[in-house]
Amino acid sequence: MDGGAAGAPTLGVDLGGTKIEIAAVSPDGRILGSRRRPTEASRGPEPVIADLIATLRESIAAEGRRATAVGVGVAAQVDGSGGVVFAPNLRWRNVALGARLSAAVGLPVTVTNDVRAATFGEWKFGAGRGESDLVCLFIGTGIGGGAVVAGTLLEGASHTGGELGHMTIVTGGRACTCRNLGCFEAYVGGWAIAARAQEAARSSPSDGRWMVDAAGTLEAITAATVVAGFEAGDAMSKRLFDETAAYLGSGLVGVVNAFNPRRLILGGGIVERAPFLIEPAERHVRTHALEAAMGELRFERAGLGNDAGVVGAAAMAAHASGRGGPG
Amino acid sequence: MDGGAAGAPTLGVDLGGTKIEIAAVSPDGRILGSRRRPTEASRGPEPVIADLIATLRESIAAEGRRATAVGVGVAAQVDGSGGVVFAPNLRWRNVALGARLSAAVGLPVTVTNDVRAATFGEWKFGAGRGESDLVCLFIGTGIGGGAVVAGTLLEGASHTGGELGHMTIVTGGRACTCRNLGCFEAYVGGWAIAARAQEAARSSPSDGRWMVDAAGTLEAITAATVVAGFEAGDAMSKRLFDETAAYLGSGLVGVVNAFNPRRLILGGGIVERAPFLIEPAERHVRTHALEAAMGELRFERAGLGNDAGVVGAAAMAAHASGRGGPG
Repeated sequence: MDGGAAGAPTLGVDLGGTKIEIAAVSPDGRILGSRRRPTEASRGPEPVIADLIATLRESIAAEGRRATAVGVGVAAQVDGSGGVVFAPNLRWRNVALGARLSAAVGLPVTVTNDVRAATFGEWKFGAGRGESDLVCLFIGTGIGGGAVVAGTLLEGASHTGGELGHMTIVTGGRACTCRNLGCFEAYVGGWAIAARAQEAARSSPSDGRWMVDAAGTLEAITAATVVAGFEAGDAMSKRLFDETAAYLGSGLVGVVNAFNPRRLILGGGIVERAPFLIEPAERHVRTHALEAAMGELRFERAGLGNDAGVVGAAAMAAHASGRGGPG
Repeated sequence: MDGGAAGAPTLGVDLGGTKIEIAAVSPDGRILGSRRRPTEASRGPEPVIADLIATLRESIAAEGRRATAVGVGVAAQVDGSGGVVFAPNLRWRNVALGARLSAAVGLPVTVTNDVRAATFGEWKFGAGRGESDLVCLFIGTGIGGGAVVAGTLLEGASHTGGELGHMTIVTGGRACTCRNLGCFEAYVGGWAIAARAQEAARSSPSDGRWMVDAAGTLEAITAATVVAGFEAGDAMSKRLFDETAAYLGSGLVGVVNAFNPRRLILGGGIVERAPFLIEPAERHVRTHALEAAMGELRFERAGLGNDAGVVGAAAMAAHASGRGGPG
């Protein structure tokens, strides 16, 4: 940040199975400009990397070649030295992404997991600004998590730390998409809310009528159907919603007791669609988590929305190029 | 550690509801000498603090007045600046323990939670030596936990981080001693194993015969009874043991997915009495936790036994006096 680079942006990349988003981000977290294109992951890694390089070059040119570093958040297991170990949505295994991008654009490149990037973004420029101990939980189709402990982003021994969606909350319970039974995500993730709702409608067709009518078919019921039914006063939707809030509270008690964060930041598509889910879950946490863990705790909604990933990735790149390592 | 203080010990104190233990510990973690006395907590704080000061002075004299600092691990919620906020076993509230001791013995005093002290001990001189990412779980009457994240002891926003025994593993499950339902501790802690065994013997008296005979009465059945029955081939004890291992595995999956430690260190009275509990739990974790979190993971038994508390408290004091802050 010294001398000529004062105020220079870094580039943040959000690389997922459906879209590539690249933003130029100022040192104080403002998006100066962004580009987006479909990933078309079925083409395999090489065309996607070529697109990524071309789009990065456009972004670098658009910012007058002032960008100092690139940060990539990718929906993947990463190796801590720029490599993608496994990205199920991209169908990538062992791609030396950081080295490839760095060689192509001539800038230092940091590669991290997309949820950790979003957590970093919320920490530096969103709802966690100024805090040294926080937890983020992003509830969308699945549940992603991240934690900052004593001013350090939780990375973990093999770069998978913060998988809070895969904490067991019901021993022997519902099968998760991972190998475990009873995961937090297997009750509160969007796919799980949909599955629970479809099961309920199947076993009680008359009570499930509203949801089936709203969705068109039973198989088309989603978490959004349940939220809409809750808002419309449908009894079964209300029950499913209340159960979801109870599972959310139950999982959050464990998160709070384990991490003792000062802020608990909730974001993701489900929270954005149904922010009123937070209140009953927070009430449950305040009456069930350890009192000693409660004194400093604040619940917050995520502040950056869909920008958390690119802003966080860009901020991690700035942090890494200024300090020599991510996190 | 420089100059005249090279090799000088620090004093570690383990202050609990039943005993006070003080050890002089060398910079490389060896116990040079120790003293122990009953706490007699019912007398209230003042006589206990007087005893503590007298015993500290004896220890300081016995070490030729070379000790450079004192670390206290106490079964309590602490405030991060030497104060005890609440110690249920001692029946203390808001005692400025660090300031009192420091004024009396003329050395810097660090006060921390006893489980965090033990975690620090295992990290620096026990089963976690040399690691930057680890989790300790001490399973005794209750379950205490601690974590080291990127080379920093997890402290938490209000100094209660690492309460892994109070992660929910059965939503809506058994009542815990805390305010939550379905805590890890409410299934796997010694008190909970005893309660589960007594309930089982009560509902199936003929199957529970072995345990009742071994314990003398149904109400006298403890976790040790169950372990003895397991070793003796009693069918109900075997079932209770297997269920305990399953709950342990289920909780550990959550711990591993959340923290992604390189070492998972298990200690405490239950693990010391029944180390064969680890193997089925480890097998469960290896088949149910995220594969990406498994690559680097090693299970270890705690290495310091009952000394972890005093050794860790002494090491924290050395760390604090050398670096200006605990952890």
